[in-house]
Amino acid sequence: MKVLAEHSLQIRVRYPEVDAMGYLHHSRYLQYLEMGRIELLRSRGHSYAQIEQQGIFFVVIKVQINYKAPAKYDEDLTLITRVIKQTHVRFDHAYELRRGNTLLAEATTTIACVDRTGQLIQIPESLSTLAPSAQ
Amino acid sequence: MKVLAEHSLQIRVRYPEVDAMGYLHHSRYLQYLEMGRIELLRSRGHSYAQIEQQGIFFVVIKVQINYKAPAKYDEDLTLITRVIKQTHVRFDHAYELRRGNTLLAEATTTIACVDRTGQLIQIPESLSTLAPSAQ
Amino acid sequence: MKVLAEHSLQIRVRYPEVDAMGYLHHSRYLQYLEMGRIELLRSRGHSYAQIEQQGIFFVVIKVQINYKAPAKYDEDLTLITRVIKQTHVRFDHAYELRRGNTLLAEATTTIACVDRTGQLIQIPESLSTLAPSAQ
Amino acid sequence: MKVLAEHSLQIRVRYPEVDAMGYLHHSRYLQYLEMGRIELLRSRGHSYAQIEQQGIFFVVIKVQINYKAPAKYDEDLTLITRVIKQTHVRFDHAYELRRGNTLLAEATTTIACVDRTGQLIQIPESLSTLAPSAQ
Repeated sequence: MKVLAEHSLQIRVRYPEVDAMGYLHHSRYLQYLEMGRIELLRSRGHSYAQIEQQGIFFVVIKVQINYKAPAKYDEDLTLITRVIKQTHVRFDHAYELRRGNTLLAEATTTIACVDRTGQLIQIPESLSTLAPSAQ
Repeated sequence: MKVLAEHSLQIRVRYPEVDAMGYLHHSRYLQYLEMGRIELLRSRGHSYAQIEQQGIFFVVIKVQINYKAPAKYDEDLTLITRVIKQTHVRFDHAYELRRGNTLLAEATTTIACVDRTGQLIQIPESLSTLAPSAQ
Repeated sequence: MKVLAEHSLQIRVRYPEVDAMGYLHHSRYLQYLEMGRIELLRSRGHSYAQIEQQGIFFVVIKVQINYKAPAKYDEDLTLITRVIKQTHVRFDHAYELRRGNTLLAEATTTIACVDRTGQLIQIPESLSTLAPSAQ
Repeated sequence: MKVLAEHSLQIRVRYPEVDAMGYLHHSRYLQYLEMGRIELLRSRGHSYAQIEQQGIFFVVIKVQINYKAPAKYDEDLTLITRVIKQTHVRFDHAYELRRGNTLLAEATTTIACVDRTGQLIQIPESLSTLAPSAQ
């Protein structure tokens, strides 16, 4: 796995994100992964809000996630987000969610670049600078 | 309290809507109230999705809610939604959320009619038919 | 793929489930899949709420999902949920989310049976009747 | 309004918290208010997670909120949380949600102290230190 970009994010589990078992609901992990992608972009000087204002959107087309151990309310987690592949229209990311040294979940996603109508478009040059070493 | 329109909706509490205490999270009630307003509209032949496509939006500007008893996962609840006041630009609704004969919550909301930019606009004539007896 | 049990569920997309693009947020699909599993159980005479009260829980340990086309606010969707595999401690489900004849998403999940402390336990005999033809 | 304790919290609006209008959904504000209460507690050396482990819970019994202006995705907001009243079993809080100098919402809540069964109990002495100047 070649890593084209990497970012680490601290996330504290919120009360309404936890279910009746007291565990972070498994659907919430996908919201955390999205935050990981957005903060990786921000760390490279890109605002996803501004990207959308230019009519460029990224939609999730594939998710794979393995849950290893539960997370609980108020725990401080670390999410490692890595860009592992880029094509003209897609990014693949890989993720590790950890609590200290404990691996809670591993995931991969594929996102595609689309316009306002949902048609595939080429990833703008400026965002490709995400992966300068990919050339 | 004059009732200009009334609607009853059955709602089953979903798993991720419940918090670590096993109770429907208090923020979720506002989502249920919104469903009550939307289904009241639908029962009068109006689709909120289509209203939005015409550039007409309703934004919540005030909520008051009293929680009387908790709701739990998988319980079947009844939400009574009533239009209690209408002006040129606003609707006031009152609500009762019940489980059988037990009152779980009482609420009132004020919603305002706005355009895409958030400016107040007059409620369209067609939607005023919500309250024919108000004329 | 052998189908051990199958269930069809209608789901209407709620307003706060939709994101700024106007699409059902990709994390919400996992909540719909959970509703599919729970309603499949209910159609067989089992209440997941009661199962939990007996100290038996099912936790999601793996999700794979492919998003094919977006769903929008207020659309009426059909979720087909199928049990495709059962071991002593796990169920595998496969899902199709459709809007009419349009396939919106395909997914598979693995859930494991655990006790209150999160330890793997054997799926109770009574729940195995989910898959009578599997014996 | 006497202020018994006060805390300021920065919150960045997340993508799935925003609705199809592009605005922070009005139900999410209640989740932010809860975060404000929890972080005020933490700033006084109390962990709500640990309080719950001791069998002490706080349930929301009343909310009033006025929405003044919308918040959008990725905006950095400031939430001011104030304890304005304390009885043997209840706390009243008042809140201001701001974006810079713009007031987005004002709210008040009442929370009650209960045990695991939902019965009202007296607020523990240690938590009353929240408001030392109230003596």
